[in-house]
Amino acid sequence: MDLTEKDLKYIWHPYTQMKDCLNLPPIIIEKADGVKLYDKNGNVYYDTISSWWCNVHGHCHPRIVSAIKKQAEKLDHVLFAGFSHKPAIELAERLIAITHKDITRVFFSDNGSTSVEVAIKLSFGYWQNMGYCEKKKFISLDLAYHGDTVGAMSVSGVSLFNEIFQPLLFPSYKIRSPYCYRCPLDKVKGVCKISCIKFLEDILKEKNKEICAFIVEPLVLGAGGMVVYPKEYLKKASRLCKKYDVHLILDEVATGFGRTGRMFACDWVDLSPDFICLSKGITSGWLPLGATLTTDKIYKAFYGEYEKAFFHGHTYTANPVSTAVALESLNIFEEEKTLERVKGLIPVFHKNLERFRGLDCVGDVRYIGMIGAFELVKDKKTKARFDQKERIGYKVYKKGLENGLILRPLGDVIYLFLPLSVKEDEMLDILERTYSILKEALRL
Amino acid sequence: MDLTEKDLKYIWHPYTQMKDCLNLPPIIIEKADGVKLYDKNGNVYYDTISSWWCNVHGHCHPRIVSAIKKQAEKLDHVLFAGFSHKPAIELAERLIAITHKDITRVFFSDNGSTSVEVAIKLSFGYWQNMGYCEKKKFISLDLAYHGDTVGAMSVSGVSLFNEIFQPLLFPSYKIRSPYCYRCPLDKVKGVCKISCIKFLEDILKEKNKEICAFIVEPLVLGAGGMVVYPKEYLKKASRLCKKYDVHLILDEVATGFGRTGRMFACDWVDLSPDFICLSKGITSGWLPLGATLTTDKIYKAFYGEYEKAFFHGHTYTANPVSTAVALESLNIFEEEKTLERVKGLIPVFHKNLERFRGLDCVGDVRYIGMIGAFELVKDKKTKARFDQKERIGYKVYKKGLENGLILRPLGDVIYLFLPLSVKEDEMLDILERTYSILKEALRL
Repeated sequence: MDLTEKDLKYIWHPYTQMKDCLNLPPIIIEKADGVKLYDKNGNVYYDTISSWWCNVHGHCHPRIVSAIKKQAEKLDHVLFAGFSHKPAIELAERLIAITHKDITRVFFSDNGSTSVEVAIKLSFGYWQNMGYCEKKKFISLDLAYHGDTVGAMSVSGVSLFNEIFQPLLFPSYKIRSPYCYRCPLDKVKGVCKISCIKFLEDILKEKNKEICAFIVEPLVLGAGGMVVYPKEYLKKASRLCKKYDVHLILDEVATGFGRTGRMFACDWVDLSPDFICLSKGITSGWLPLGATLTTDKIYKAFYGEYEKAFFHGHTYTANPVSTAVALESLNIFEEEKTLERVKGLIPVFHKNLERFRGLDCVGDVRYIGMIGAFELVKDKKTKARFDQKERIGYKVYKKGLENGLILRPLGDVIYLFLPLSVKEDEMLDILERTYSILKEALRL
Repeated sequence: MDLTEKDLKYIWHPYTQMKDCLNLPPIIIEKADGVKLYDKNGNVYYDTISSWWCNVHGHCHPRIVSAIKKQAEKLDHVLFAGFSHKPAIELAERLIAITHKDITRVFFSDNGSTSVEVAIKLSFGYWQNMGYCEKKKFISLDLAYHGDTVGAMSVSGVSLFNEIFQPLLFPSYKIRSPYCYRCPLDKVKGVCKISCIKFLEDILKEKNKEICAFIVEPLVLGAGGMVVYPKEYLKKASRLCKKYDVHLILDEVATGFGRTGRMFACDWVDLSPDFICLSKGITSGWLPLGATLTTDKIYKAFYGEYEKAFFHGHTYTANPVSTAVALESLNIFEEEKTLERVKGLIPVFHKNLERFRGLDCVGDVRYIGMIGAFELVKDKKTKARFDQKERIGYKVYKKGLENGLILRPLGDVIYLFLPLSVKEDEMLDILERTYSILKEALRL
């Protein structure tokens, strides 16, 4: 049996209807370098979506390879209760230095879902420890995605992903999202005065006594369709949370580490979060690591008698190799001046994205930083969606692969989520190839 | 600021009342080798509990160091939907080869909690996809621990760890555990005919139509107090699950990879699981990785129309570096004949553990494979527990550190959970030191 046959025989891939693999078997990647992936047959693919939004400095960056080697020789792992180590401590120090001034503590875990679970539990535990026992619920957006564990699904929007698991989820309030292309209030972007904030305000006004936190992906609703929303919405949301004494949990798992053009999406807005959830780009796409950052106020609510402690952990919490890699990624940000370099690329990227508006099937083009998305529609005038059964996104994805791109769709949304290390000519090549494919999308 | 001060300033440690760190700050580990950890002040500690039950072949095993280096140069990471790679495929093949013949598929994730969440969701999804929509609940033991995410907590026993989070958990049936030292039926071990299986039988008889699965840690309830229970219990449980058409989920996160003297704890018993959850030892204590293994029957229930797929995943699913490490760990098992070597050590270990029964404060000694536990009691005759406020376990832990041991307690249970690579003289030294400490425990 060759590797492909073995894959089909033994592996159950995530988010995959395995029957689709009969016609389109998984592509076996042998090596990676920069923004490129190389398969066993010599084909090359641009990692157009940063391997699920996590790669930052390009694949197999030599500095990170060196950091891994150095750490592996010294300390593989040690339990993180009662014990600690330099890479985790220095990483915590650095994360605190680059986030909001109120952020003072780091709680490590293994991935985005667990970073969210930790925030949910800390917020919930805070209110319980402080005696506000009726505060037990959360608010989130109806297009939110915060992960696939039961707690993370509970605060995500209801979708094909989690619909059948609803009986396992704790109840939470879902409000309409600031989805400008399909405005829930039929307003016009730019002159709407962010009226849709009313959905949050209404529920806060009515239910604040039972609400622990509002959890939100800042500026971009990722899996919900790369919905880029106005900064003003986030600012207003933050103020409302303060006003009604409800925590603000920022899920920066996808948006963190430079994606939006600043280190964190929340850096665009004057606000003070109670929690910031990090993963994905934290290790520049190398190794599993999650982190939940929080404030002194939250920390103090768990400080004191033994019983008040936060009893949560994972075996590999703050793994030395993962944290050493994360540290080196921050070093690269500084020494390669990644954000400055990207600042030069972004206007070129956005200008080129605007060109896609002319395409027949592109209803909306939205972008921020190195993220750009195209919402495909059957009819631009009515914004009518494609029939789900047409699987237009899947057709584009297959066409993309033939052209060396990974245009993995989110429903009918095709997007680019580029590594920050992408070079201008590579970026333009990716855009050109994507344009050619979308131009023919209706004929696929 | 030195590292310790920075740690205390920035880090929130798992399962830790941070106030305790004022008197006993986290020990900063600089390097590790074999079963030993070295701190920044030159102190040496035996990793008596395998860094939370995950280290297998000793720290910084040179073969694994080489495997990491080799993989890091080639392929750091690639998304695992639509794409695949050699280390993950070969690891899946190897895992299937060494587990029960009915096990045919591997679904990767990042840690023990997620491996359990995946099993819960797959079991639940199976029944929904098959049209048994009333099957929505799970059964677990009242001393079970399956992780800290909301789904994993929901099927864990209620304890100090998760009590305040109960409002967030989905309801599940908890049954009395086969805790021989404190038999729920006041029977005598050995002649009890495993009467306590009735708790499982009763609930299955009455509620099987609404039950998805029984989830259990095979042979050892880890965080519940290293409660080693009779193999016959597991065998009977498996048969009852078959009889009442309920899945059996084996959480081998702690017991897998040789801990009990066989590769998996379930290898001691003739049974056929529907799910096996793996993590911890899978990478020999190096890097985060989880895996949920299942059968063709489960797989087929998600195979077909797009909507039936299992929509679950984590960014770092099947990370190439983690899976390469896991593969190399299996190679070491073969080439160093780890299980054979351990087979020679185990009788010596157990014989020495028996000696602890003579100690004043040791109410129970229990063991299997390289796991040994001592339940400390105030009064051996009445089995009266210590007052929680005395924190006897914590006192022993502190004394252990002074003597180069990590005797991290589970309540009043002190245990050894040794790396399989431990040498006989090291093991005897650990036992001797532990004995001396427990001899004085009542005077601490």
